[in-house]
Amino acid sequence: MQLAMVGDKLIEADKLDLAYQDFGTYFGDGVYEVLRSYNGKLFALDEHIARFKRSLAEIEIEGVDVDDIKNKVVSTWKKTGFANAKIYFHITRGAGVRDHSAEGLTPRFLLIISELEEATAQKQTGISVITTPDTRWKRCDIKSLNLLPNVLAKRKAHKAGCDEAIFVDDKGFVTEGSSSAFFTIFGDKLQTSPLAINILPSVTRLFVMKIYKNAGLELMEKQITPAEAVKADEMFIAVSSKDIVPVVKFDGKLIADGKPGKYAKKLMEEFKNLVK
Amino acid sequence: MQLAMVGDKLIEADKLDLAYQDFGTYFGDGVYEVLRSYNGKLFALDEHIARFKRSLAEIEIEGVDVDDIKNKVVSTWKKTGFANAKIYFHITRGAGVRDHSAEGLTPRFLLIISELEEATAQKQTGISVITTPDTRWKRCDIKSLNLLPNVLAKRKAHKAGCDEAIFVDDKGFVTEGSSSAFFTIFGDKLQTSPLAINILPSVTRLFVMKIYKNAGLELMEKQITPAEAVKADEMFIAVSSKDIVPVVKFDGKLIADGKPGKYAKKLMEEFKNLVK
Repeated sequence: MQLAMVGDKLIEADKLDLAYQDFGTYFGDGVYEVLRSYNGKLFALDEHIARFKRSLAEIEIEGVDVDDIKNKVVSTWKKTGFANAKIYFHITRGAGVRDHSAEGLTPRFLLIISELEEATAQKQTGISVITTPDTRWKRCDIKSLNLLPNVLAKRKAHKAGCDEAIFVDDKGFVTEGSSSAFFTIFGDKLQTSPLAINILPSVTRLFVMKIYKNAGLELMEKQITPAEAVKADEMFIAVSSKDIVPVVKFDGKLIADGKPGKYAKKLMEEFKNLVK
Repeated sequence: MQLAMVGDKLIEADKLDLAYQDFGTYFGDGVYEVLRSYNGKLFALDEHIARFKRSLAEIEIEGVDVDDIKNKVVSTWKKTGFANAKIYFHITRGAGVRDHSAEGLTPRFLLIISELEEATAQKQTGISVITTPDTRWKRCDIKSLNLLPNVLAKRKAHKAGCDEAIFVDDKGFVTEGSSSAFFTIFGDKLQTSPLAINILPSVTRLFVMKIYKNAGLELMEKQITPAEAVKADEMFIAVSSKDIVPVVKFDGKLIADGKPGKYAKKLMEEFKNLVK
């Protein structure tokens, strides 16, 4: 028998909803995805499902039918009727008595779908960002529930009146944003870090790779320092819920004239074509 | 309105138990403690509460009355009647719509107390450990719910037939175990890493510091490499639920004659005196 207290309430642990003893809560022992629909169409579902499958494998959660997950996402989203939806789902290792190496748990699935508010103002005027040391774990290529450093970074950004925090690693290179991928543009060169074990393989990045040529850009996958980045002609972040969002201020300094640049606008237009 | 699915069940998100949208689960955005009672007496409660208070402050969870937490731990533990109890508690930032930088949430408290099984066999015969790269975040001095690397390390240890994984940082130095502090003994010198931002200030370590002299040891706070550690005369881990546990095999190699050493035994005896 285990005795529990939730808030002020005493309860036998066996009678708690399993969510209370979820390994997602005890350890962040789970992986997740966030995707969206545009105008009544799900965007990049297969890409998100593929990444999710990889994340599950990397943290050794087995026996999950990802096709079933995919079907649940589609059918539940259809029930909401949201033309523009934000779709979050995760799988955790299971629930039970707290034990780092528990075996034989049943993985637990949670899906939450909400109506998405378009980030119209942010896209039109651009956002401000700060840089902050990348204190995250060494496997940020896995989209796991261990996101406390991301939370702390985003809180720091908000306190500084900014919308996003951009992580900088020990060697002084930008990795990515606390919940976004990071891009700069110099002339007609689009620059972003090559994918690595400390960078999430962003799905929006994947689609930027498909449209940059249409926007008249060339690609350079190369690490960048904040000192170099601040001299960029343009800067933007990429995130599934908003696709392309121009950055106009970086650590308090204006990027070019402090307005979203022509290429960022072109990329936003190209994205609109993708999701039509 | 948010629509949710839990497992196979469709439900309005508003009707879910708050535990499902707990920021502990979404982000690991919370901190915890584990302590125990010995023979009807709580051990080191004040030390655990002090560390908990520091952890809360470090991740900026405000408005928690830690004296109230302490009272809840004591009163609930008394209700269990467990002479030897394992006591887990955490506080998360709160619950609500998933948002990295949500403000104004009500922190959520969970306490779970179970009867503790003494690790008698492990203490008598000693345990085996493996080393593994320390992939954790850079603030392991905070006892947070971001424990996925610890879970993965412990799973790796178990697959290798071992009981614990000992983390080794990028510079080749041991930091600590996946759920324990790490000590070696050379002659009469007790060696452990100095506390740092990548090491949890272990409460059991704190008490080892109070008893090593009684056991006839001198202290050396100095980092160690696995190659040095394996040559130790003795080795042990320290963890709140078991206090001192001798290590007799390290990465497949016997430590000395492969049996718990005299100083480890003395320290276990000294611990018994502490908790009488």
